[in-house]
Amino acid sequence: MRVCARVPTLPAPTARGRMQPLKGFRDFFPQDLAHLRWIQSAWHSAAKLAGFEEWDGPVLEPLKLFTDKSGDEIAGQLYAFEDKGERPVALRPEMTPTLVRMLSARAGALPKPIKWYSVAQFFRYEQPQHGRGREFFQWNVDVVGSPHPAADAEVIAVAVEALRRLGLSDEDLRVRISDRGALAAFLVALEVPEELHLSVFECIDKLERDPAATRRLTEILGESRAAELLCACDQFPLSRAERLGVVLEACRDWGLGACLEPDLRIVRGLAYYTGTVFEIFARGAKLRAVAGGGRYDRLMSDMGGPPLEAVGFGMGDMVLSLLLAERGLEAPPGMRLEVLVIGTDASMLSPAREVVRELRSRGVASETAYAPVRVSKALRSASNQGVPRVVLVGPDEWAERKVVVRELSSGQQRTVHLSELD
Amino acid sequence: MRVCARVPTLPAPTARGRMQPLKGFRDFFPQDLAHLRWIQSAWHSAAKLAGFEEWDGPVLEPLKLFTDKSGDEIAGQLYAFEDKGERPVALRPEMTPTLVRMLSARAGALPKPIKWYSVAQFFRYEQPQHGRGREFFQWNVDVVGSPHPAADAEVIAVAVEALRRLGLSDEDLRVRISDRGALAAFLVALEVPEELHLSVFECIDKLERDPAATRRLTEILGESRAAELLCACDQFPLSRAERLGVVLEACRDWGLGACLEPDLRIVRGLAYYTGTVFEIFARGAKLRAVAGGGRYDRLMSDMGGPPLEAVGFGMGDMVLSLLLAERGLEAPPGMRLEVLVIGTDASMLSPAREVVRELRSRGVASETAYAPVRVSKALRSASNQGVPRVVLVGPDEWAERKVVVRELSSGQQRTVHLSELD
Repeated sequence: MRVCARVPTLPAPTARGRMQPLKGFRDFFPQDLAHLRWIQSAWHSAAKLAGFEEWDGPVLEPLKLFTDKSGDEIAGQLYAFEDKGERPVALRPEMTPTLVRMLSARAGALPKPIKWYSVAQFFRYEQPQHGRGREFFQWNVDVVGSPHPAADAEVIAVAVEALRRLGLSDEDLRVRISDRGALAAFLVALEVPEELHLSVFECIDKLERDPAATRRLTEILGESRAAELLCACDQFPLSRAERLGVVLEACRDWGLGACLEPDLRIVRGLAYYTGTVFEIFARGAKLRAVAGGGRYDRLMSDMGGPPLEAVGFGMGDMVLSLLLAERGLEAPPGMRLEVLVIGTDASMLSPAREVVRELRSRGVASETAYAPVRVSKALRSASNQGVPRVVLVGPDEWAERKVVVRELSSGQQRTVHLSELD
Repeated sequence: MRVCARVPTLPAPTARGRMQPLKGFRDFFPQDLAHLRWIQSAWHSAAKLAGFEEWDGPVLEPLKLFTDKSGDEIAGQLYAFEDKGERPVALRPEMTPTLVRMLSARAGALPKPIKWYSVAQFFRYEQPQHGRGREFFQWNVDVVGSPHPAADAEVIAVAVEALRRLGLSDEDLRVRISDRGALAAFLVALEVPEELHLSVFECIDKLERDPAATRRLTEILGESRAAELLCACDQFPLSRAERLGVVLEACRDWGLGACLEPDLRIVRGLAYYTGTVFEIFARGAKLRAVAGGGRYDRLMSDMGGPPLEAVGFGMGDMVLSLLLAERGLEAPPGMRLEVLVIGTDASMLSPAREVVRELRSRGVASETAYAPVRVSKALRSASNQGVPRVVLVGPDEWAERKVVVRELSSGQQRTVHLSELD
């Protein structure tokens, strides 16, 4: 019986006394996991509130799924190996290839638009650093099968909603947004030949990080056109970005007006996106990018799947955690127990369990000690753990199926019948 | 910015048009995932109700963590490889080694007993079959740092509680339970030399599956002692199993009386367990083992960690899913949307979004179309999706900030001010 195997495959003590997790991987002690669950819960809530359905795929996939388009940065970071059946496989570094595969199989049967989200773990062999591990969780939200600007706005609104739920206010958020179509149209207006567009995109993408990008832009475009483009970067030519205007308008309907920052510098690297592109920044010690995404209308058909347009974003847990920590934002204190039931002497162990059973049947998280304990010690333990209420089960009251309920904050107590417990 | 990378690493269409997930791995379309989440939610609720805290560890661990005790069945099923830093690593096939590592690091600082649970995914390269994949989810629940029989009973009660929450009734459940200590004491009474105990344990473990086990038992013990032992298997010598008696008594306090079945045949294979051992069976088309566990008091100290006693169990999702399906038990129908908001003409797109924003701010899962749709078509779509309520936003009502709320089941409708929406 496999599910039940709890087999003694145990490491001998190492030289250092105990083993460590792999570099870049995390042990989640209950407090750490409560923090992660808090973030994930904001992700789930924001998505479900907007009518997105959760999906997931395998953590391990055929290597081919991730490498068929060669030359990727991600391909060099794959946890790839051969399984015992000599299949090349890899731990997933991202979700989109799996999304495309799954939608290719079923998209025809699904009503459009398809609104899907996932909260999944990913693996990349990179140099671990502050805010970057070799595993991380990421929230992906996608609308598939709608070309409309309002879909772009809705995914942005969903991303912001999750951040608000975690305690960030609109003043701390910036949605930097552009449209690759508008940038391309601008280049056409500058009479930049189409074969140069991609190199120009690359330069613009790097403007903020790479001082050489401005020089390269001038080399490609010549001085005057480069200057005009840089000027447009400083002041977004919204009048020439009609579709983006509609996206922004819809974003304002979602209450995002204060956060919006049209910015031609947002390109998002690679050739994937076809229209709207955006990055969401939030203020911690400094402004950090916590999410990014855009429209990728040609992906499905490029794969030989159904010709469905799509727009979506990803938001990871690590940079977000860093930022929340900097802001002093943390999970509301969890309560392991609502009630501790204390048998006042050794004969009360079994009645105390009966009381706990009654409480649990009413949905109250409760427990009692496995062996007799002194009442004073149990009370101290309850108080140390922040348990708000104890129930004392003593022989005299129990003779009448009664117990004493004590609120630890006030010390107030009352004697009630088991049937009246709540 | 890594968290946001959505890179075009996409597979070309394969010969068969689209790629498949790896054999033994699962794609979770929303309906599949809703089923898994339903099971996991029962696991989480049952554990939290009893005061257990959730923890997790890395999916990928140093290979050594799983292989240091050689000769394991599990070691032969590992997804093991070298990472790019040439470290031998493996996908976790089980949780216990990680538990022991993490507790070794911190157990000293934690109040005892430590009540921890996890809901995690595991990986084993086995032949996939009905109810067995190469990945699966498993719920692990452990009490660490208490030697008391009541702890054994509580973990069993928690396992049964989850099954009840999934719709199984006590008549469908059997907790087969034994105590290795009692079995050993029985062998001592039969004057079986201690060096033979392990082989006898092995035979008893196999009695139900391997016809040769009875013969081997006779070879080891001689005819008369073997007969006596087999007789004890048919009628558990409870009078000689004092500790188990206390466990059973506590189980009865938890309302498990009807399910309990003391059975000396339950051994649970390997040398890991030291006392109570149990397997929980549930009735689908046939009786299937859905969980198993026991007491493993020497594990921590065997690893050079703190000498903490422990008792726990594991319950996997795959056999359980099979069984629930056989019983016709499934997740309650999920509702993607509570309200569909419909703008009655193209000018109402933006007001409709404002209404949705209001609804979402009140926690109501709602959406509106990204582009103008005919009202009749939107109503049909709402009805097809089982959305219980629509809100119609038309120019006349909206002039007074009012909307029409229609219940789709009754056709009843009323006109309300935006501020009165709920």
